[in-house]
Amino acid sequence: MTTPALIDSLRAIVGAAHVLTDGDLTAYEQDWRKRARGKALAVVRPGSTAEVAAVVKACATAGTALVPQGGNTGLAVGSIPDESGRQVVLSLARMAAVREIDAANLTITVEAGCVLQVLQETAAKAGFLFPLSLAAEGSCTIGGNLATNAGGTQVLRYGNARELCLGLEVVTAQGEVWDGTSGLRKDNTGYDLRDLMVGSEGTLGIITAATLKLFPQPAARLTAWAAVGSFDDAVQLLGQAQRHLGAGLTGFEVMGRFALSLVRRHMPQLKVPFADEAGDGHPYFVLLENSDSESEEHARARFESLLEAAFESGCVADAVVAENLSQAHELWHIRESIPLAQAEEGLNIKHDISLPVSRIPAFCHETDALLAREIPGVRLVNFGHLGDGNLHYNVQAPAEGDARAFLRDQEKRVNELVYAQVQKFGGSFSAEHGIGSLKVETLEKHKSPVALGMMRAIKSALDPQGLLNPGRVLAG
Amino acid sequence: MTTPALIDSLRAIVGAAHVLTDGDLTAYEQDWRKRARGKALAVVRPGSTAEVAAVVKACATAGTALVPQGGNTGLAVGSIPDESGRQVVLSLARMAAVREIDAANLTITVEAGCVLQVLQETAAKAGFLFPLSLAAEGSCTIGGNLATNAGGTQVLRYGNARELCLGLEVVTAQGEVWDGTSGLRKDNTGYDLRDLMVGSEGTLGIITAATLKLFPQPAARLTAWAAVGSFDDAVQLLGQAQRHLGAGLTGFEVMGRFALSLVRRHMPQLKVPFADEAGDGHPYFVLLENSDSESEEHARARFESLLEAAFESGCVADAVVAENLSQAHELWHIRESIPLAQAEEGLNIKHDISLPVSRIPAFCHETDALLAREIPGVRLVNFGHLGDGNLHYNVQAPAEGDARAFLRDQEKRVNELVYAQVQKFGGSFSAEHGIGSLKVETLEKHKSPVALGMMRAIKSALDPQGLLNPGRVLAG
Repeated sequence: MTTPALIDSLRAIVGAAHVLTDGDLTAYEQDWRKRARGKALAVVRPGSTAEVAAVVKACATAGTALVPQGGNTGLAVGSIPDESGRQVVLSLARMAAVREIDAANLTITVEAGCVLQVLQETAAKAGFLFPLSLAAEGSCTIGGNLATNAGGTQVLRYGNARELCLGLEVVTAQGEVWDGTSGLRKDNTGYDLRDLMVGSEGTLGIITAATLKLFPQPAARLTAWAAVGSFDDAVQLLGQAQRHLGAGLTGFEVMGRFALSLVRRHMPQLKVPFADEAGDGHPYFVLLENSDSESEEHARARFESLLEAAFESGCVADAVVAENLSQAHELWHIRESIPLAQAEEGLNIKHDISLPVSRIPAFCHETDALLAREIPGVRLVNFGHLGDGNLHYNVQAPAEGDARAFLRDQEKRVNELVYAQVQKFGGSFSAEHGIGSLKVETLEKHKSPVALGMMRAIKSALDPQGLLNPGRVLAG
Repeated sequence: MTTPALIDSLRAIVGAAHVLTDGDLTAYEQDWRKRARGKALAVVRPGSTAEVAAVVKACATAGTALVPQGGNTGLAVGSIPDESGRQVVLSLARMAAVREIDAANLTITVEAGCVLQVLQETAAKAGFLFPLSLAAEGSCTIGGNLATNAGGTQVLRYGNARELCLGLEVVTAQGEVWDGTSGLRKDNTGYDLRDLMVGSEGTLGIITAATLKLFPQPAARLTAWAAVGSFDDAVQLLGQAQRHLGAGLTGFEVMGRFALSLVRRHMPQLKVPFADEAGDGHPYFVLLENSDSESEEHARARFESLLEAAFESGCVADAVVAENLSQAHELWHIRESIPLAQAEEGLNIKHDISLPVSRIPAFCHETDALLAREIPGVRLVNFGHLGDGNLHYNVQAPAEGDARAFLRDQEKRVNELVYAQVQKFGGSFSAEHGIGSLKVETLEKHKSPVALGMMRAIKSALDPQGLLNPGRVLAG
């Protein structure tokens, strides 16, 4: 099929208005962090699962590759076309319907293009909690969240996107529709295709809808802030909080002193509790969240009893429980402002690593020292979801000097040093951001060859033409 | 390779004492429910992952099929050899070591042959809860639990075996070792091979070890028993309990009147609360479990406040909270005695179905009536894990007449009627027992052809010779 013939047939499927080939396509062609820009043959915006299937069939016939795209907010450059001008962007944005809320089953079924925040709000209006929560929630879509197995701040209690998903509707590489949008919590009828699709970044199939778990809204959610003397103390506090609060512990975020000093420098309106103005106070801080099915009073009593026990055992130096919702939001706002404060400070190298919680103190101790020795002046912006073993172990260019030159000269070396340490400590170089095109080489280098072999065999089996998001996750 | 040459090379790998070819091999060749008996070429009992890999390589070279086996307690005839006498049983029983407990990471790493109860007890000794719990726990192994994605009584809060697993060590069909025994809670580096292996019943790879989640022991676990006027009321009570107790609700089992009447008939020493001696009391009963991270006193107060609210809303007719552990054990014992009471009553047809919780009342109403109409005299033994939407919707032969003849003449028809209803209501015909060889045809009939096509493609990709547990899950 010629290119014009393909474009014609795509127009016939979705309507001419939904096949974009001219004008400013930046929103579809450039990635969220503006690290890369591609060129699409066309942007196609189907309005139904049947249209997605027909688009895939037309592209398969033409031998044209497809790049599925949700909110295009991914951090691993996985949802934009390459520079060839020969790939079709398949935007799921128009498929945003909420198909069903099943209150007694605690499930919601939505189309892939539903924006995460809309999904959260729809659940809340029906009296339920949909717990997935992350920085891009105002723009990212649930299809993208599932395709990348998104994490965020509530993983400790509710799991990643994968754990929140009960069933999927998927269009295969052959343009067939698999309706697996089941609301079942138990179904042992064959291989787990759902979890295989989740996290496959659009390379094995195109997620068009999903059935997701809902939870009763907690009666109260309280936030606390603690200063701790070391990473060891933070890990000890985590264990105490898990024993004391059980499943009530819904958040446990750690932040290093330097990360918070950037917040204080660039957002002076934010008051960071227990942070010394001279910047030489406590080395680490922890934000804890306690969700309670009973009452705010009960949540507060449990929180206070935890923190008292933590003081007594010596793992907390200072702590405060937010008095009200607005104080709680302020504390979360400090945590969430770290990436922006980092950006204000200048260019930096981001990592999204995970480790067994038990090994994090030794990892940080050793890797901090290694980087300081190997790359003098380097500044570590260390923060993350300690409860999940997930650190954003970021590296800021030295205070003096040209940050752009630093990144150009040192980014590869910094990554190699950090990822070698991650591997040594049994960790992952991509905890929640995925592989996209950004980390394909890192995957080849650090993943077990046996696992890589199985991944390649599965890719060939399900997408033998190699037309679904080629070059992402696995080299094309 | 000739058969004698293969046996010789297996002996060289694992030692002659661990290659069984003579004597009574019933324990390896007959399934748990004694529904089938096969004949093994040999039973091989490797002692290490390296030995498993070498055995797989030797069998692959000889073109000999392997049947992995744990405790051989499965309910779908998936772990015994066929009758050809040409399949090798690979028993993981000797690989039973606990490799590591990582307290700060809340994980335990064990070999596949570790018996579930040993695993539970090892966790408990270290101060933790490993929540997977099911009837066969004294004999089944964690490898088998993972290979079949076992369910049980704690799924409502803690999930199936899949949700409890963070990482696997697997020997592939090629005899390579994939070490994926990670203790990471977040790892987005490629396709989810772990969950693909979990539930694949030994047809895609052989699980040799696993890293599993541990939980803090709850401070208290209380059990309550309630009589309800209908299945609708049971579903309403479930919703109230979920809102009221949050993640504290760790058990919600439903039992029909007739199921309990069998317990009363065959185990008269068990006192079933609120069950009328004439057998015409409440139609359904519910067992609830509340696990609390605070104290027994708090758990009791929460339970009582839930049950008061449930009385007021009218969904509970009568209820009692167990006063002590021994009363709680008695209540659980009643629930767990139903299968045995059924067996005492005579032959019966078992189902392991799941449905969206919201559709269960209508399903039962319609299917009860359908069966009564189509097969006069049939008696329904309906009980199960309502919190997970999982019913053991079993069919007992009519009280009068020859049960063996009933099964011979009616089992197929009963299954067809029930599974057609399950499909109509969006359910699954195998919630937690898997496919094995028993339900291969049912899978072909009821599974989406698109999903089946993907399953076959994956099987061919990972096991191109078709030597891993052939004929299980998918037709050989």
